[in-house]
Amino acid sequence: MKLTKDQIKEIKDQQSQDNITKRVVSSELEKILYEALPILDHGFIRVVDYMGNDTSIVQAARVSYGKGTKKVNTDSGLIKYLMRHWHSTPFEMCEIKYHVKLPIFIARQWIRHRTANVNEYSARYSILDKEFYLPDQKNLAAQSTINRQGRGGVIKGDQAEKVLNLLKEDAERTYKNYEEMLNQRFDGTTINENKIGLARELARMNLTLNTYTQWYWKTDLLNLMNFLRLRADHHAQYEIRAYAEVMLDTLKKWVPITYEAFMDYRVGGTEVSAKGKSIIQKLIKGEKVSMEETGLSKREWNELMIAFELKDKVI
Amino acid sequence: MKLTKDQIKEIKDQQSQDNITKRVVSSELEKILYEALPILDHGFIRVVDYMGNDTSIVQAARVSYGKGTKKVNTDSGLIKYLMRHWHSTPFEMCEIKYHVKLPIFIARQWIRHRTANVNEYSARYSILDKEFYLPDQKNLAAQSTINRQGRGGVIKGDQAEKVLNLLKEDAERTYKNYEEMLNQRFDGTTINENKIGLARELARMNLTLNTYTQWYWKTDLLNLMNFLRLRADHHAQYEIRAYAEVMLDTLKKWVPITYEAFMDYRVGGTEVSAKGKSIIQKLIKGEKVSMEETGLSKREWNELMIAFELKDKVI
Amino acid sequence: MKLTKDQIKEIKDQQSQDNITKRVVSSELEKILYEALPILDHGFIRVVDYMGNDTSIVQAARVSYGKGTKKVNTDSGLIKYLMRHWHSTPFEMCEIKYHVKLPIFIARQWIRHRTANVNEYSARYSILDKEFYLPDQKNLAAQSTINRQGRGGVIKGDQAEKVLNLLKEDAERTYKNYEEMLNQRFDGTTINENKIGLARELARMNLTLNTYTQWYWKTDLLNLMNFLRLRADHHAQYEIRAYAEVMLDTLKKWVPITYEAFMDYRVGGTEVSAKGKSIIQKLIKGEKVSMEETGLSKREWNELMIAFELKDKVI
Amino acid sequence: MKLTKDQIKEIKDQQSQDNITKRVVSSELEKILYEALPILDHGFIRVVDYMGNDTSIVQAARVSYGKGTKKVNTDSGLIKYLMRHWHSTPFEMCEIKYHVKLPIFIARQWIRHRTANVNEYSARYSILDKEFYLPDQKNLAAQSTINRQGRGGVIKGDQAEKVLNLLKEDAERTYKNYEEMLNQRFDGTTINENKIGLARELARMNLTLNTYTQWYWKTDLLNLMNFLRLRADHHAQYEIRAYAEVMLDTLKKWVPITYEAFMDYRVGGTEVSAKGKSIIQKLIKGEKVSMEETGLSKREWNELMIAFELKDKVI
Repeated sequence: MKLTKDQIKEIKDQQSQDNITKRVVSSELEKILYEALPILDHGFIRVVDYMGNDTSIVQAARVSYGKGTKKVNTDSGLIKYLMRHWHSTPFEMCEIKYHVKLPIFIARQWIRHRTANVNEYSARYSILDKEFYLPDQKNLAAQSTINRQGRGGVIKGDQAEKVLNLLKEDAERTYKNYEEMLNQRFDGTTINENKIGLARELARMNLTLNTYTQWYWKTDLLNLMNFLRLRADHHAQYEIRAYAEVMLDTLKKWVPITYEAFMDYRVGGTEVSAKGKSIIQKLIKGEKVSMEETGLSKREWNELMIAFELKDKVI
Repeated sequence: MKLTKDQIKEIKDQQSQDNITKRVVSSELEKILYEALPILDHGFIRVVDYMGNDTSIVQAARVSYGKGTKKVNTDSGLIKYLMRHWHSTPFEMCEIKYHVKLPIFIARQWIRHRTANVNEYSARYSILDKEFYLPDQKNLAAQSTINRQGRGGVIKGDQAEKVLNLLKEDAERTYKNYEEMLNQRFDGTTINENKIGLARELARMNLTLNTYTQWYWKTDLLNLMNFLRLRADHHAQYEIRAYAEVMLDTLKKWVPITYEAFMDYRVGGTEVSAKGKSIIQKLIKGEKVSMEETGLSKREWNELMIAFELKDKVI
Repeated sequence: MKLTKDQIKEIKDQQSQDNITKRVVSSELEKILYEALPILDHGFIRVVDYMGNDTSIVQAARVSYGKGTKKVNTDSGLIKYLMRHWHSTPFEMCEIKYHVKLPIFIARQWIRHRTANVNEYSARYSILDKEFYLPDQKNLAAQSTINRQGRGGVIKGDQAEKVLNLLKEDAERTYKNYEEMLNQRFDGTTINENKIGLARELARMNLTLNTYTQWYWKTDLLNLMNFLRLRADHHAQYEIRAYAEVMLDTLKKWVPITYEAFMDYRVGGTEVSAKGKSIIQKLIKGEKVSMEETGLSKREWNELMIAFELKDKVI
Repeated sequence: MKLTKDQIKEIKDQQSQDNITKRVVSSELEKILYEALPILDHGFIRVVDYMGNDTSIVQAARVSYGKGTKKVNTDSGLIKYLMRHWHSTPFEMCEIKYHVKLPIFIARQWIRHRTANVNEYSARYSILDKEFYLPDQKNLAAQSTINRQGRGGVIKGDQAEKVLNLLKEDAERTYKNYEEMLNQRFDGTTINENKIGLARELARMNLTLNTYTQWYWKTDLLNLMNFLRLRADHHAQYEIRAYAEVMLDTLKKWVPITYEAFMDYRVGGTEVSAKGKSIIQKLIKGEKVSMEETGLSKREWNELMIAFELKDKVI
């Protein structure tokens, strides 16, 4: 990740603010506010604003449940209770805003989370930066042969080199031709004074999907956790997981009590179906259970066994 | 509006905070943060948190439009441009949270605005306060005879007195019977030690719709303006308008530039249909236009004439 | 539930339609379309429109996953897979619309599900029907002494009679006074020709929360299941559960395959936290586990044991 | 637009359905149900399902306003009233589902409309079709010199030819290299039996933004109109407008009365600010108004004059 001089100056200016506020603050998050946390080769995440902290959740819950919350006498106990019983609205009382730089094909996954506010850099108005995502060789995975949307082993040697060259050459050539069509270079200078360039809204179609874009993305704490639960999961594509993992760190700094409950009940937890529950009950009683009698498919059976780390029972 | 000692202490504690933050602040809003602004007889609005200010809108717009915004060289010019052209996403970058005390029949109107986060006091968990809305005599309006959802003249004299008595007596009696069924008084004391009370979730059904409830209500700036546009309008019911007007003041303190643009383009503005435009064009040219030839209904014609203060043309 | 002559006629008219369509249909749901299914003393649910059926979910999934779905060769297998892995968007491709008559205090719980479309009978425009919910004696539960939002044993004898009388008398008196203030009876006739009535938007505040209202409520299949998961649960208040249970029946008729997966994975399933998983693993291995060493609270421990029906381990 | 044999067969099968339903139908829309309506060079729109018609809006409004709607005695009058006064909820009672094939750079604009349900073809699961958008020469517009996001004159001659060649060559080359990296051709055949291909989720990043994707897109009538208002507008990019215009036709077939009101009040209408209203009033009175005294910027002044076709007043 390379920031321009202007960007570095802007971040410094933002960080040098020392405002007085009557609002609650999150002191650990303040320490990294506006900081550009590097991700992938050219991407970053910056926390640029937030509202509320752990106490805001507790306060909202106490408004809802009134005198009913008196018995749960610690903030931590109450937040764990809310998380365990899927109470959602108190977590919506906190809000966070990120500035994210990310490849377009990842942006397309990300935007599917609809309950968020977004301002994306517009390639109708402005020229996109000359930056494309090129994977590290160690992330150059083959198609999985068992999972249609997964990755298999790493591609190495000549084949790896060839893939990386193709990605690089194609991104560079399409970008060069993008400039050519615009009759303008990425730094804003004109190529040929006697020509008029193609409209930006058209020329952009020539760029490849690994071109970087950027946006402001704002969401509430509940929806942030929904996002992280899916995108920090090992089933998520590596490239979006890289963002989710950095965001998990910001979650920890922002709302440490909620973070702990989230890791226990959501990230580390699992769901068990009605059929699954009855299998687990039998196993606890020491009864033998065979897949056939349960009506579960092999895939579902194995998912259950893996969830409870019963590796010897995986078929 | 009467606050309990506990509430007054809580507000004082909140207001005595002096936190340092790198976030942007809204200095005028800070001055009234947490303050209970009285509305109706027992209601109030308190701003309890916020995120962003006018500069956040500008910043989000500049991310979207990149170098494209350089030409609009003032924040005010840019915000007016965004408002005029219905650009919505930059306004979603600011967020505000209110604590509101309001009669249940108003809460039922309010909640229809779905793009907001709410934590309401739960009458399943706790006993509702013994407070009901009783209108001021000057707001005791008769049913309008021309508008099915509107108010006509004020009801006065004996009839007014009777209405107010009925409202008061019914609210007090149903509340007393609510306590009776709960076998518990509003202050939490038990009525009859030998009895067990009816479940709170059932007893509450005996309360009248003017009983006060309270909630935390959080929304973004765009949706706040959508709310205010409808609810601060003179067609809105007086009781919800009373809230909207106080909220308009908080909007002004929070984002003064946006407030000004909002008043000009939304609150003070009007929409004109295709047919309406062609009528206005003719009027500007000095041509005569009769309602009949336009295809407009009498109602629609009059709405247009009133919007442009052409009172002599109202039929 | 008593329908008016007009309502009965309207339902007959709607049901007598025999339209030809190229859209997919749900033949079991067609059989009860428009039917008023009675709930509580005066309430009902009617399915008044729907879009899609089980095949619509499969079709949407096949668009998303393309050739990737070929291996799952039955619709049922695919729908179960989607449900198990929390794929949400294919279930959003189906839509249903209900006409519901329900007490206001239940409507207030219901409306908290925001991802739905609602048209409610407006008491600003029209007079509400003279109908209130009065619980069956067998549902007249005492406040639970262990759960702040729950119900305990049934209230009987004199106390029950007294409660029912209070509810009935208060509802009737407040309704009578509502008519008095309106100067109009519920059937639209005027009470006193020489008076003008109070505005409807004001008079309504005198009604009790057990007064019935009605609305059209439309949502997609995903959000319907979210609603039912919470509201058909035994923690839900009896009165809303009564609606949810009838709606579960309509779900079964509409999308039978999805219904089955929903009952297995959601309604009958459970979530297990990271800590809970490690306890279950130990129990399966035959190890002893004491609550103290797990870090779980007594409440959380018991919830886990009850979920897996290990009643002897409940403390 | 070229459909595969499989697609043609699927459409025929869908269109040959003759189901009986008690639901309301929209007979004009039924005629084109499932039909692939061609857009751009390879794109299409198909209406694949719908719920409700004009009468559903009327019915929902009558539930809301009860006896209050009796006076408006035609469906058309009521729908116009609802549209004029921005009543939104009755329009949410209708739903429509489209199958759309469109270039990725247009999909990225489209998806910003969040209140919709989407199932997009996943390039993690499957290989994308070998189809890219190449503009017609007549749509090959230069960048506007006065509007940062607009188009200017058409690019012609050699320069046009060169642009089209660049677009074509780059799309073809990047697609060929996509196949190369996948070690698989678009028809599913393997290129080199001794190699394993790169994961699909990675290889896709090499494609250009004019590659076609497809999705199911479902929304309610209110949000469809919000979409069309923005995207059928002449400020919208030509390529998305091409879709919006075909969708306008489907709107007309589906809900003809609503369509007419929409064209009059939304598409053909305009908003006037408070300042704008006072200018119009003066013009109607025959007074002279100069831009300077109004406080309007030149841009805003001109927008107002153009809206009312006062071309001689444009500065």
